Amino acid sequence: MSELRRIGVAIATDLLDKFDALIDKRGYTNRSEAFRDLIRAELVRESSRRPAGHVVGSLTVVYDHHVRLLEEKLTELQHNQHHLILSVLHVHLDHDNCMELIALRGTSAHVQRFADSLAATKGVKHAQLAITASGDSL
Amino acid sequence: MSELRRIGVAIATDLLDKFDALIDKRGYTNRSEAFRDLIRAELVRESSRRPAGHVVGSLTVVYDHHVRLLEEKLTELQHNQHHLILSVLHVHLDHDNCMELIALRGTSAHVQRFADSLAATKGVKHAQLAITASGDSL
Amino acid sequence: MSELRRIGVAIATDLLDKFDALIDKRGYTNRSEAFRDLIRAELVRESSRRPAGHVVGSLTVVYDHHVRLLEEKLTELQHNQHHLILSVLHVHLDHDNCMELIALRGTSAHVQRFADSLAATKGVKHAQLAITASGDSL
Amino acid sequence: MSELRRIGVAIATDLLDKFDALIDKRGYTNRSEAFRDLIRAELVRESSRRPAGHVVGSLTVVYDHHVRLLEEKLTELQHNQHHLILSVLHVHLDHDNCMELIALRGTSAHVQRFADSLAATKGVKHAQLAITASGDSL
Repeated sequence: MSELRRIGVAIATDLLDKFDALIDKRGYTNRSEAFRDLIRAELVRESSRRPAGHVVGSLTVVYDHHVRLLEEKLTELQHNQHHLILSVLHVHLDHDNCMELIALRGTSAHVQRFADSLAATKGVKHAQLAITASGDSL
Repeated sequence: MSELRRIGVAIATDLLDKFDALIDKRGYTNRSEAFRDLIRAELVRESSRRPAGHVVGSLTVVYDHHVRLLEEKLTELQHNQHHLILSVLHVHLDHDNCMELIALRGTSAHVQRFADSLAATKGVKHAQLAITASGDSL
Repeated sequence: MSELRRIGVAIATDLLDKFDALIDKRGYTNRSEAFRDLIRAELVRESSRRPAGHVVGSLTVVYDHHVRLLEEKLTELQHNQHHLILSVLHVHLDHDNCMELIALRGTSAHVQRFADSLAATKGVKHAQLAITASGDSL
Repeated sequence: MSELRRIGVAIATDLLDKFDALIDKRGYTNRSEAFRDLIRAELVRESSRRPAGHVVGSLTVVYDHHVRLLEEKLTELQHNQHHLILSVLHVHLDHDNCMELIALRGTSAHVQRFADSLAATKGVKHAQLAITASGDSL
């Protein structure tokens, strides 16, 4: 963690009041922390726009484990891209449905393509990618 | 426009450097302006989450003007919600397709429902809502 | 408009029931129309991911017309990229604020960069891009 | 899983060709599967709009474990909302940073509020919510 600097920001009183009300509602106790989170979120949006941008995130998939050979298929797809996958959490949602949370790290393009390939697998009902951090902006 | 205040924000040097690089690339010449834009965008995201939040924005629709009675239908839908509609811009995209940009103001729920009703009309190919400002956060 | 084909789609009864309820609520009277809209929306999401993808859409900006030289600046930025801009709608929101809806056509990367440059201009409070159609998927 | 029905969908040849090309690129081997995924994704978008909509999903957070008392704070926040949390996966990203993938189930409003409260905690750098399935649309 690098050293902290204190910078000045000019802002209209009424806009500041609205911002303070918003962050108070969300549970922030420190305005600088809220500013830093806004910056980080913007850096992530920028990284995920560029195919070569380095990102960290998760893919959440929901699937029906009764579909024939699906688990083998998913395991194989994941092993083929094992360099992208940090770890996996498996949840039994109900009698039919499983949810997997797959922690990922790689380029925006690779991560996106991997997400597409799982989403396209027969029996996978939902697949949602969350890009939570660019490797550069941690 | 209310008076400007100058506040202090504590931020790690390396995060600040990345932010400065990003806003420089986007063309900002003033860091406070970039902070104010981040705040406004966050207030808008918050307003559009609440159904009763007051929003300003636009609906962009693309449709095929050859579809029978479509223009009459769109005109009627718009007149039924004329209190939401500030103005409309019509563009002839090509031989078949028209694009309309509809400037809107109202509650988030009303604006969303209006967008859904146009999107559902036969012949409307695309409808995309952009919430650009909450009435409160201008 | 090319000829219509009729294809068969296999779908679980309960999923179909939920889909029918959703499109009924949104005002669709025709299930095929709802399917076509889903397809077009997915094609647009795909085009806007690729920097070279050809898109059509709109940029909605809100700004304070009292900011010195802002209107000249916005006009100049727009003229510099006049080949992207199909037309512009101007709305007077209140005493201070203007909204412009700018109809755009070009590559995803060009349209995005233009949106960034307007967003970064001092006095522009909000800028929101809506990619409503890929040129290829009309 | 309920029984499969086969419905007919009318669709222009050129739009169908583009859709087939897209789903082929993404790795689908079955067009009906692609249609079902589009439907489910739309049902999820609808559920997450309604505060009372029942959703399943994940929250991905990245934080610096050196921040004093942060882990205790995060543990407490999670225990306070333990009824929302199905399970948690913890990843050590690098010397400073941890990533947690939190599997969630509850109403859209509760899940969103929980995500806000973690995002607002000092030391949490990123928090991204992925709503992957409505409980109703599994």
